[in-house]
Amino acid sequence: MGQPRVRAERPDGEFLGYRFKDQTLLERALTHRSAAGEHNERLEFLGDALIGFMIADYLFNRFPDADEGALTRTRATLVNRDSLAAIARGLDLGAHLRLGEGELKSGGWRRDSILANCFEALVGAVFLDGGMEACRERVDAWFAERFATIDPKDATKDPKTQLQEYLQSRRHALPAYRTLDVSGPPHNQTFLIECAIPALDLAVEAEGKSRRRAEQEAARLALAAAQAQFVKE
Amino acid sequence: MGQPRVRAERPDGEFLGYRFKDQTLLERALTHRSAAGEHNERLEFLGDALIGFMIADYLFNRFPDADEGALTRTRATLVNRDSLAAIARGLDLGAHLRLGEGELKSGGWRRDSILANCFEALVGAVFLDGGMEACRERVDAWFAERFATIDPKDATKDPKTQLQEYLQSRRHALPAYRTLDVSGPPHNQTFLIECAIPALDLAVEAEGKSRRRAEQEAARLALAAAQAQFVKE
Repeated sequence: MGQPRVRAERPDGEFLGYRFKDQTLLERALTHRSAAGEHNERLEFLGDALIGFMIADYLFNRFPDADEGALTRTRATLVNRDSLAAIARGLDLGAHLRLGEGELKSGGWRRDSILANCFEALVGAVFLDGGMEACRERVDAWFAERFATIDPKDATKDPKTQLQEYLQSRRHALPAYRTLDVSGPPHNQTFLIECAIPALDLAVEAEGKSRRRAEQEAARLALAAAQAQFVKE
Repeated sequence: MGQPRVRAERPDGEFLGYRFKDQTLLERALTHRSAAGEHNERLEFLGDALIGFMIADYLFNRFPDADEGALTRTRATLVNRDSLAAIARGLDLGAHLRLGEGELKSGGWRRDSILANCFEALVGAVFLDGGMEACRERVDAWFAERFATIDPKDATKDPKTQLQEYLQSRRHALPAYRTLDVSGPPHNQTFLIECAIPALDLAVEAEGKSRRRAEQEAARLALAAAQAQFVKE
Protein backbone atom coordinates (compact mmCIF):
# COMPACT_ATOMS: atom_id res chain seq x y z
CA MET A 1 0.00 0.00 0.00
CA GLY A 2 2.33 2.76 1.21
CA GLN A 3 1.91 6.51 0.97
CA PRO A 4 1.82 8.57 -2.21
CA ARG A 5 5.27 9.13 -3.64
CA VAL A 6 5.44 12.89 -3.40
CA ARG A 7 3.39 15.38 -1.45
CA ALA A 8 4.20 18.74 -2.97
CA GLU A 9 3.75 21.74 -0.70
CA ARG A 10 1.69 24.52 -2.28
CA PRO A 11 2.24 23.39 -5.87
CA ASP A 12 2.13 26.28 -8.34
CA GLY A 13 1.03 24.04 -11.17
CA GLU A 14 4.29 24.01 -13.10
CA PHE A 15 4.17 20.22 -13.00
CA LEU A 16 1.05 20.55 -15.18
CA GLY A 17 2.59 22.75 -17.86
CA TYR A 18 0.53 25.65 -16.56
CA ARG A 19 1.44 28.20 -13.90
CA PHE A 20 -1.55 29.40 -11.90
CA LYS A 21 -1.91 33.10 -11.18
CA ASP A 22 -4.33 32.21 -8.38
CA GLN A 23 -2.76 29.43 -6.29
CA THR A 24 -5.96 28.87 -4.36
CA LEU A 25 -7.72 27.64 -7.51
CA LEU A 26 -5.13 24.93 -8.02
CA GLU A 27 -5.25 23.98 -4.36
CA ARG A 28 -9.03 23.73 -4.49
CA ALA A 29 -8.87 21.55 -7.64
CA LEU A 30 -6.58 19.15 -5.80
CA THR A 31 -8.71 18.98 -2.65
CA HIS A 32 -11.04 16.00 -2.34
CA ARG A 33 -14.20 16.50 -0.33
CA SER A 34 -12.84 14.17 2.37
CA ALA A 35 -10.15 16.77 3.21
CA ALA A 36 -10.60 19.95 5.20
CA GLY A 37 -11.14 23.21 3.35
CA GLU A 38 -12.84 24.10 0.12
CA HIS A 39 -13.07 20.98 -2.04
CA ASN A 40 -13.10 20.44 -5.78
CA GLU A 41 -16.67 19.32 -6.56
CA ARG A 42 -17.95 22.61 -7.99
CA LEU A 43 -14.83 22.89 -10.15
CA GLU A 44 -15.45 19.32 -11.27
CA PHE A 45 -18.97 20.30 -12.43
CA LEU A 46 -17.50 23.13 -14.50
CA GLY A 47 -14.58 21.09 -15.83
CA ASP A 48 -16.79 18.21 -16.91
CA ALA A 49 -18.85 20.60 -19.05
CA LEU A 50 -15.71 22.24 -20.45
CA ILE A 51 -14.14 18.94 -21.45
CA GLY A 52 -17.40 17.85 -23.07
CA PHE A 53 -17.50 21.00 -25.14
CA MET A 54 -13.81 21.17 -26.04
CA ILE A 55 -13.61 17.56 -27.17
CA ALA A 56 -16.84 17.97 -29.18
CA ASP A 57 -15.44 21.10 -30.83
CA TYR A 58 -12.14 19.37 -31.58
CA LEU A 59 -13.79 16.31 -33.15
CA PHE A 60 -16.27 18.45 -35.11
CA ASN A 61 -13.40 20.33 -36.76
CA ARG A 62 -11.01 17.46 -37.24
CA PHE A 63 -13.50 15.03 -38.76
CA PRO A 64 -15.68 17.04 -41.16
CA ASP A 65 -17.11 13.87 -42.70
CA ALA A 66 -18.01 11.99 -39.52
CA ASP A 67 -21.70 11.89 -38.71
CA GLU A 68 -23.21 12.73 -35.34
CA GLY A 69 -23.27 9.10 -34.17
CA ALA A 70 -19.59 8.56 -34.91
CA LEU A 71 -18.69 11.87 -33.24
CA THR A 72 -20.70 10.96 -30.14
CA ARG A 73 -19.13 7.52 -29.88
CA THR A 74 -15.63 8.87 -30.48
CA ARG A 75 -16.11 11.41 -27.73
CA ALA A 76 -17.26 8.65 -25.39
CA THR A 77 -14.04 6.72 -26.04
CA LEU A 78 -12.01 9.86 -25.22
CA VAL A 79 -14.03 11.11 -22.25
CA ASN A 80 -14.89 8.51 -19.66
CA ARG A 81 -13.78 7.69 -16.15
CA ASP A 82 -11.04 5.30 -17.24
CA SER A 83 -9.50 7.70 -19.75
CA LEU A 84 -9.66 10.75 -17.47
CA ALA A 85 -8.13 8.74 -14.62
CA ALA A 86 -5.34 7.64 -16.97
CA ILE A 87 -4.62 11.25 -17.94
CA ALA A 88 -4.63 12.18 -14.23
CA ARG A 89 -2.08 9.42 -13.59
CA GLY A 90 0.09 10.71 -16.41
CA LEU A 91 0.11 14.10 -14.65
CA ASP A 92 0.84 12.39 -11.32
CA LEU A 93 -2.18 14.14 -9.82
CA GLY A 94 -2.42 11.42 -7.18
CA ALA A 95 0.80 12.68 -5.61
CA HIS A 96 -0.68 16.16 -5.22
CA LEU A 97 -4.18 15.25 -4.07
CA ARG A 98 -5.39 16.45 -0.71
CA LEU A 99 -7.41 13.67 0.89
CA GLY A 100 -8.92 13.12 4.30
CA GLU A 101 -7.33 10.59 6.65
CA GLY A 102 -9.68 7.76 5.71
CA GLU A 103 -9.23 8.15 1.97
CA LEU A 104 -5.48 8.52 2.43
CA LYS A 105 -5.23 5.28 4.37
CA SER A 106 -7.38 3.35 1.90
CA GLY A 107 -5.33 4.53 -1.09
CA GLY A 108 -7.81 7.06 -2.46
CA TRP A 109 -5.09 8.72 -4.55
CA ARG A 110 -5.06 5.61 -6.71
CA ARG A 111 -8.83 5.40 -7.19
CA ASP A 112 -10.11 5.99 -10.74
CA SER A 113 -13.15 8.02 -9.73
CA ILE A 114 -11.19 10.37 -7.45
CA LEU A 115 -8.47 10.87 -10.07
CA ALA A 116 -10.94 11.45 -12.93
CA ASN A 117 -12.90 13.97 -10.85
CA CYS A 118 -9.70 15.74 -9.87
CA PHE A 119 -8.68 16.04 -13.51
CA GLU A 120 -12.07 17.56 -14.36
CA ALA A 121 -11.66 20.01 -11.47
CA LEU A 122 -8.19 20.93 -12.73
CA VAL A 123 -9.62 21.79 -16.16
CA GLY A 124 -12.24 23.98 -14.47
CA ALA A 125 -9.53 25.68 -12.41
CA VAL A 126 -7.35 26.46 -15.45
CA PHE A 127 -10.41 27.95 -17.18
CA LEU A 128 -11.19 30.23 -14.24
CA ASP A 129 -7.53 31.20 -13.85
CA GLY A 130 -6.49 31.69 -17.47
CA GLY A 131 -9.63 31.81 -19.60
CA MET A 132 -10.95 29.73 -22.45
CA GLU A 133 -7.91 29.77 -24.73
CA ALA A 134 -5.40 28.86 -22.03
CA CYS A 135 -7.71 26.06 -20.94
CA ARG A 136 -8.16 24.79 -24.48
CA GLU A 137 -4.41 24.79 -25.02
CA ARG A 138 -3.92 22.64 -21.89
CA VAL A 139 -6.78 20.26 -22.72
CA ASP A 140 -5.37 19.78 -26.23
CA ALA A 141 -1.97 19.01 -24.72
CA TRP A 142 -3.36 16.61 -22.12
CA PHE A 143 -5.39 14.75 -24.74
CA ALA A 144 -2.66 14.92 -27.43
CA GLU A 145 -1.59 11.29 -27.16
CA ARG A 146 -5.19 10.13 -27.42
CA PHE A 147 -5.98 12.53 -30.25
CA ALA A 148 -3.10 10.99 -32.19
CA THR A 149 -4.69 7.56 -32.39
CA ILE A 150 -8.45 8.13 -32.69
CA ASP A 151 -10.47 7.48 -35.80
CA PRO A 152 -14.27 7.82 -35.81
CA LYS A 153 -14.44 4.86 -38.19
CA ASP A 154 -13.09 2.69 -35.35
CA ALA A 155 -15.56 4.03 -32.84
CA THR A 156 -17.85 1.08 -32.92
CA LYS A 157 -20.71 1.02 -30.51
CA ASP A 158 -19.80 -0.40 -27.14
CA PRO A 159 -21.56 -3.61 -26.01
CA LYS A 160 -23.96 -1.82 -23.61
CA THR A 161 -25.13 0.47 -26.42
CA GLN A 162 -25.41 -2.45 -28.83
CA LEU A 163 -27.46 -4.45 -26.33
CA GLN A 164 -29.72 -1.48 -25.59
CA GLU A 165 -30.37 -0.88 -29.29
CA TYR A 166 -30.97 -4.59 -29.88
CA LEU A 167 -33.59 -4.70 -27.11
CA GLN A 168 -35.21 -1.40 -28.10
CA SER A 169 -35.58 -2.54 -31.69
CA ARG A 170 -37.58 -5.49 -30.33
CA ARG A 171 -39.52 -3.27 -27.91
CA HIS A 172 -38.14 -5.06 -24.87
CA ALA A 173 -37.36 -3.38 -21.56
CA LEU A 174 -33.79 -2.19 -21.03
CA PRO A 175 -31.40 -4.54 -19.26
CA ALA A 176 -30.86 -4.17 -15.53
CA TYR A 177 -27.27 -4.12 -14.26
CA ARG A 178 -26.62 -5.14 -10.69
CA THR A 179 -23.42 -5.39 -8.68
CA LEU A 180 -23.31 -8.88 -7.20
CA ASP A 181 -19.92 -8.62 -5.55
CA VAL A 182 -16.93 -6.34 -5.08
CA SER A 183 -13.77 -8.09 -3.93
CA GLY A 184 -10.11 -7.30 -3.41
CA PRO A 185 -8.30 -4.40 -1.75
CA PRO A 186 -9.48 -0.85 -2.57
CA HIS A 187 -6.80 -0.15 -5.15
CA ASN A 188 -7.27 -3.47 -6.94
CA GLN A 189 -10.93 -4.37 -6.80
CA THR A 190 -12.79 -6.85 -8.94
CA PHE A 191 -16.44 -6.23 -9.73
CA LEU A 192 -18.95 -8.99 -10.41
CA ILE A 193 -21.89 -7.60 -12.36
CA GLU A 194 -25.15 -9.18 -13.41
CA CYS A 195 -26.94 -8.11 -16.56
CA ALA A 196 -30.57 -9.23 -16.47
CA ILE A 197 -33.12 -9.07 -19.27
CA PRO A 198 -36.43 -10.12 -17.68
CA ALA A 199 -38.28 -10.06 -21.02
CA LEU A 200 -35.97 -12.79 -22.36
CA ASP A 201 -35.73 -14.62 -19.05
CA LEU A 202 -32.00 -14.11 -19.27
CA ALA A 203 -29.31 -13.16 -16.77
CA VAL A 204 -25.55 -13.35 -17.19
CA GLU A 205 -22.61 -12.44 -14.95
CA ALA A 206 -19.21 -11.01 -15.75
CA GLU A 207 -16.15 -9.81 -13.87
CA GLY A 208 -13.95 -6.79 -14.49
CA LYS A 209 -11.41 -4.51 -12.83
CA SER A 210 -13.85 -1.62 -12.97
CA ARG A 211 -17.61 -1.49 -12.77
CA ARG A 212 -17.73 -0.11 -16.29
CA ARG A 213 -15.62 -2.86 -17.79
CA ALA A 214 -17.55 -5.58 -15.97
CA GLU A 215 -20.83 -4.10 -17.23
CA GLN A 216 -19.53 -3.96 -20.80
CA GLU A 217 -18.41 -7.57 -20.61
CA ALA A 218 -21.76 -8.65 -19.13
CA ALA A 219 -23.56 -6.75 -21.90
CA ARG A 220 -21.42 -8.46 -24.53
CA LEU A 221 -22.29 -11.90 -23.13
CA ALA A 222 -25.96 -11.00 -22.75
CA LEU A 223 -26.16 -9.78 -26.34
CA ALA A 224 -24.58 -13.01 -27.60
CA ALA A 225 -27.03 -15.03 -25.48
CA ALA A 226 -30.01 -12.97 -26.66
CA GLN A 227 -29.00 -13.42 -30.28
CA ALA A 228 -28.53 -17.18 -29.78
CA GLN A 229 -31.95 -17.36 -28.12
CA PHE A 230 -33.49 -15.50 -31.04
CA VAL A 231 -31.99 -17.99 -33.48
CA LYS A 232 -33.36 -20.92 -31.45
CA GLU A 233 -36.93 -19.57 -31.35
CA MET B 1 -53.16 19.38 -39.00
CA GLY B 2 -52.40 21.95 -41.74
CA GLN B 3 -49.10 23.33 -42.89
CA PRO B 4 -46.68 25.42 -40.82
CA ARG B 5 -47.78 29.00 -40.55
CA VAL B 6 -44.87 30.67 -42.29
CA ARG B 7 -42.20 29.29 -44.61
CA ALA B 8 -39.57 31.99 -44.82
CA GLU B 9 -37.37 31.94 -47.91
CA ARG B 10 -33.66 32.04 -47.13
CA PRO B 11 -34.01 33.45 -43.62
CA ASP B 12 -31.03 35.57 -42.59
CA GLY B 13 -31.59 34.90 -38.92
CA GLU B 14 -32.90 38.31 -37.94
CA PHE B 15 -35.94 36.58 -36.49
CA LEU B 16 -33.52 35.06 -33.96
CA GLY B 17 -31.95 38.31 -32.82
CA TYR B 18 -28.78 37.34 -34.66
CA ARG B 19 -27.81 38.05 -38.26
CA PHE B 20 -25.70 35.32 -39.84
CA LYS B 21 -22.65 36.29 -41.87
CA ASP B 22 -22.74 32.83 -43.44
CA GLN B 23 -26.31 32.09 -44.54
CA THR B 24 -25.52 28.46 -45.28
CA LEU B 25 -24.86 27.79 -41.59
CA LEU B 26 -28.33 28.98 -40.65
CA GLU B 27 -29.88 27.00 -43.48
CA ARG B 28 -28.07 23.88 -42.38
CA ALA B 29 -29.18 24.37 -38.77
CA LEU B 30 -32.79 24.50 -39.96
CA THR B 31 -32.51 21.41 -42.19
CA HIS B 32 -33.76 18.15 -40.74
CA ARG B 33 -32.14 14.96 -41.98
CA SER B 34 -35.39 14.02 -43.75
CA ALA B 35 -34.91 16.95 -46.15
CA ALA B 36 -32.54 17.11 -49.10
CA GLY B 37 -29.14 18.78 -48.64
CA GLU B 38 -26.77 19.07 -45.73
CA HIS B 39 -28.69 18.46 -42.52
CA ASN B 40 -28.26 19.70 -38.98
CA GLU B 41 -27.09 16.66 -37.01
CA ARG B 42 -23.41 17.56 -36.77
CA LEU B 43 -24.34 21.09 -35.68
CA GLU B 44 -26.66 19.54 -33.11
CA PHE B 45 -23.72 17.56 -31.67
CA LEU B 46 -21.72 20.76 -31.32
CA GLY B 47 -24.64 22.83 -30.00
CA ASP B 48 -25.56 20.26 -27.37
CA ALA B 49 -22.01 20.44 -25.96
CA LEU B 50 -22.02 24.25 -26.11
CA ILE B 51 -25.31 24.56 -24.25
CA GLY B 52 -24.10 22.10 -21.63
CA PHE B 53 -20.99 24.17 -21.04
CA MET B 54 -22.63 27.60 -21.17
CA ILE B 55 -25.39 26.71 -18.76
CA ALA B 56 -22.88 25.07 -16.42
CA ASP B 57 -20.69 28.18 -16.52
CA TYR B 58 -23.68 30.46 -15.92
CA LEU B 59 -24.93 28.45 -12.93
CA PHE B 60 -21.41 28.12 -11.49
CA ASN B 61 -21.02 31.91 -11.43
CA ARG B 62 -24.52 32.84 -10.42
CA PHE B 63 -24.83 30.42 -7.51
CA PRO B 64 -21.48 30.45 -5.69
CA ASP B 65 -22.93 28.59 -2.72
CA ALA B 66 -24.72 25.78 -4.57
CA ASP B 67 -23.03 22.41 -4.38
CA GLU B 68 -22.32 20.18 -7.37
CA GLY B 69 -25.50 18.14 -6.91
CA ALA B 70 -27.73 21.22 -6.89
CA LEU B 71 -25.91 22.66 -9.91
CA THR B 72 -26.31 19.40 -11.83
CA ARG B 73 -30.01 19.12 -11.03
CA THR B 74 -30.63 22.78 -11.86
CA ARG B 75 -28.95 22.35 -15.21
CA ALA B 76 -31.13 19.31 -15.91
CA THR B 77 -34.25 21.39 -15.29
CA LEU B 78 -32.98 24.02 -17.76
CA VAL B 79 -31.56 21.72 -20.42
CA ASN B 80 -33.83 18.88 -21.47
CA ARG B 81 -35.90 18.03 -24.50
CA ASP B 82 -39.05 19.70 -23.21
CA SER B 83 -37.33 22.96 -22.31
CA LEU B 84 -35.28 23.18 -25.51
CA ALA B 85 -38.40 22.45 -27.59
CA ALA B 86 -40.24 25.21 -25.72
CA ILE B 87 -37.46 27.69 -26.48
CA ALA B 88 -37.55 26.57 -30.13
CA ARG B 89 -41.31 27.22 -30.18
CA GLY B 90 -40.74 30.67 -28.70
CA LEU B 91 -38.41 31.40 -31.63
CA ASP B 92 -40.97 29.93 -34.06
CA LEU B 93 -38.28 27.59 -35.40
CA GLY B 94 -40.98 25.19 -36.59
CA ALA B 95 -42.02 27.71 -39.23
CA HIS B 96 -38.49 27.82 -40.64
CA LEU B 97 -37.63 24.12 -40.46
CA ARG B 98 -36.80 22.27 -43.67
CA LEU B 99 -38.35 18.83 -43.50
CA GLY B 100 -38.78 15.97 -45.93
CA GLU B 101 -42.23 15.28 -47.38
CA GLY B 102 -43.04 12.55 -44.87
CA GLU B 103 -42.11 14.59 -41.81
CA LEU B 104 -43.90 17.60 -43.22
CA LYS B 105 -47.15 15.68 -43.69
CA SER B 106 -46.99 14.12 -40.24
CA GLY B 107 -46.42 17.49 -38.55
CA GLY B 108 -42.72 17.08 -37.77
CA TRP B 109 -42.34 20.83 -37.22
CA ARG B 110 -44.38 20.43 -34.06
CA ARG B 111 -42.46 17.47 -32.66
CA ASP B 112 -40.49 18.10 -29.46
CA SER B 113 -37.45 16.07 -30.46
CA ILE B 114 -37.11 17.74 -33.88
CA LEU B 115 -37.53 21.21 -32.39
CA ALA B 116 -35.10 20.59 -29.53
CA ASN B 117 -32.46 19.21 -31.92
CA CYS B 118 -32.96 22.16 -34.26
CA PHE B 119 -32.42 24.58 -31.39
CA GLU B 120 -29.18 22.81 -30.46
CA ALA B 121 -28.06 22.99 -34.10
CA LEU B 122 -28.87 26.70 -34.16
CA VAL B 123 -26.62 27.28 -31.15
CA GLY B 124 -23.84 25.39 -32.91
CA ALA B 125 -24.36 27.47 -36.04
CA VAL B 126 -24.19 30.80 -34.16
CA PHE B 127 -20.95 29.64 -32.52
CA LEU B 128 -19.37 28.77 -35.87
CA ASP B 129 -20.61 31.99 -37.45
CA GLY B 130 -19.93 34.50 -34.67
CA GLY B 131 -17.66 32.85 -32.12
CA MET B 132 -18.00 32.06 -28.44
CA GLU B 133 -19.05 35.47 -27.15
CA ALA B 134 -21.76 36.04 -29.76
CA CYS B 135 -23.06 32.56 -29.06
CA ARG B 136 -23.04 33.07 -25.31
CA GLU B 137 -24.91 36.35 -25.70
CA ARG B 138 -27.65 34.59 -27.72
CA VAL B 139 -27.86 31.61 -25.36
CA ASP B 140 -28.18 33.97 -22.40
CA ALA B 141 -30.98 35.81 -24.21
CA TRP B 142 -32.79 32.64 -25.22
CA PHE B 143 -32.63 31.27 -21.68
CA ALA B 144 -33.31 34.63 -20.00
CA GLU B 145 -36.90 33.89 -19.02
CA ARG B 146 -35.88 30.58 -17.50
CA PHE B 147 -32.84 32.07 -15.76
CA ALA B 148 -35.17 34.56 -14.08
CA THR B 149 -37.07 31.91 -12.17
CA ILE B 150 -34.55 29.21 -11.27
CA ASP B 151 -33.26 28.55 -7.80
CA PRO B 152 -30.98 25.60 -7.04
CA LYS B 153 -32.73 25.23 -3.70
CA ASP B 154 -35.88 24.28 -5.61
CA ALA B 155 -34.08 21.80 -7.82
CA THR B 156 -35.26 18.74 -6.02
CA LYS B 157 -34.39 15.41 -7.48
CA ASP B 158 -36.82 14.21 -10.13
CA PRO B 159 -38.78 11.00 -9.43
CA LYS B 160 -36.62 8.81 -11.71
CA THR B 161 -33.49 9.92 -9.86
CA GLN B 162 -35.18 9.46 -6.49
CA LEU B 163 -36.32 5.96 -7.43
CA GLN B 164 -32.88 5.02 -8.74
CA GLU B 165 -31.19 6.22 -5.56
CA TYR B 166 -33.78 4.44 -3.41
CA LEU B 167 -33.14 1.14 -5.20
CA GLN B 168 -29.35 1.55 -5.27
CA SER B 169 -29.27 2.24 -1.55
CA ARG B 170 -30.96 -1.16 -1.12
CA ARG B 171 -28.68 -2.81 -3.70
CA HIS B 172 -31.58 -3.64 -6.00
CA ALA B 173 -31.37 -3.63 -9.80
CA LEU B 174 -32.39 -0.44 -11.55
CA PRO B 175 -35.98 -0.12 -12.74
CA ALA B 176 -36.80 -1.04 -16.34
CA TYR B 177 -38.94 1.42 -18.30
CA ARG B 178 -40.93 0.11 -21.22
CA THR B 179 -43.27 1.81 -23.65
CA LEU B 180 -46.53 -0.12 -23.61
CA ASP B 181 -48.47 2.10 -25.98
CA VAL B 182 -48.27 5.29 -27.99
CA SER B 183 -51.64 6.70 -29.06
CA GLY B 184 -53.06 9.80 -30.69
CA PRO B 185 -51.97 11.82 -33.73
CA PRO B 186 -48.25 12.62 -34.14
CA HIS B 187 -48.48 16.14 -32.74
CA ASN B 188 -50.55 15.12 -29.74
CA GLN B 189 -49.41 11.70 -28.65
CA THR B 190 -49.97 10.01 -25.35
CA PHE B 191 -47.38 7.60 -24.02
CA LEU B 192 -48.16 4.68 -21.75
CA ILE B 193 -45.04 3.63 -19.87
CA GLU B 194 -44.38 0.74 -17.55
CA CYS B 195 -41.86 0.97 -14.76
CA ALA B 196 -40.89 -2.50 -13.55
CA ILE B 197 -38.79 -3.41 -10.52
CA PRO B 198 -38.28 -7.17 -10.74
CA ALA B 199 -36.50 -7.34 -7.38
CA LEU B 200 -39.62 -6.01 -5.63
CA ASP B 201 -42.02 -7.90 -7.90
CA LEU B 202 -43.50 -4.55 -8.78
CA ALA B 203 -44.70 -2.96 -12.02
CA VAL B 204 -46.74 0.22 -12.44
CA GLU B 205 -48.04 2.08 -15.47
CA ALA B 206 -48.47 5.78 -16.14
CA GLU B 207 -49.51 8.03 -19.01
CA GLY B 208 -48.03 11.31 -20.18
CA LYS B 209 -47.88 13.67 -23.16
CA SER B 210 -44.19 12.90 -23.60
CA ARG B 211 -42.16 9.79 -22.92
CA ARG B 212 -40.17 11.70 -20.33
CA ARG B 213 -43.20 12.89 -18.41
CA ALA B 214 -44.82 9.45 -18.50
CA GLU B 215 -41.61 7.88 -17.20
CA GLN B 216 -41.34 10.43 -14.40
CA GLU B 217 -44.94 9.79 -13.40
CA ALA B 218 -44.41 6.02 -13.50
CA ALA B 219 -41.27 6.43 -11.37
CA ARG B 220 -43.19 8.55 -8.87
CA LEU B 221 -45.88 5.86 -8.52
CA ALA B 222 -43.30 3.06 -8.36
CA LEU B 223 -41.38 4.85 -5.61
CA ALA B 224 -44.55 5.31 -3.60
CA ALA B 225 -45.42 1.63 -4.09
CA ALA B 226 -41.90 0.51 -3.16
CA GLN B 227 -41.97 2.59 0.00
CA ALA B 228 -45.41 1.25 0.91
CA GLN B 229 -44.15 -2.30 0.34
CA PHE B 230 -41.15 -1.62 2.56
CA VAL B 231 -43.43 -0.44 5.36
CA LYS B 232 -45.56 -3.58 5.04
CA GLU B 233 -42.59 -5.98 5.27
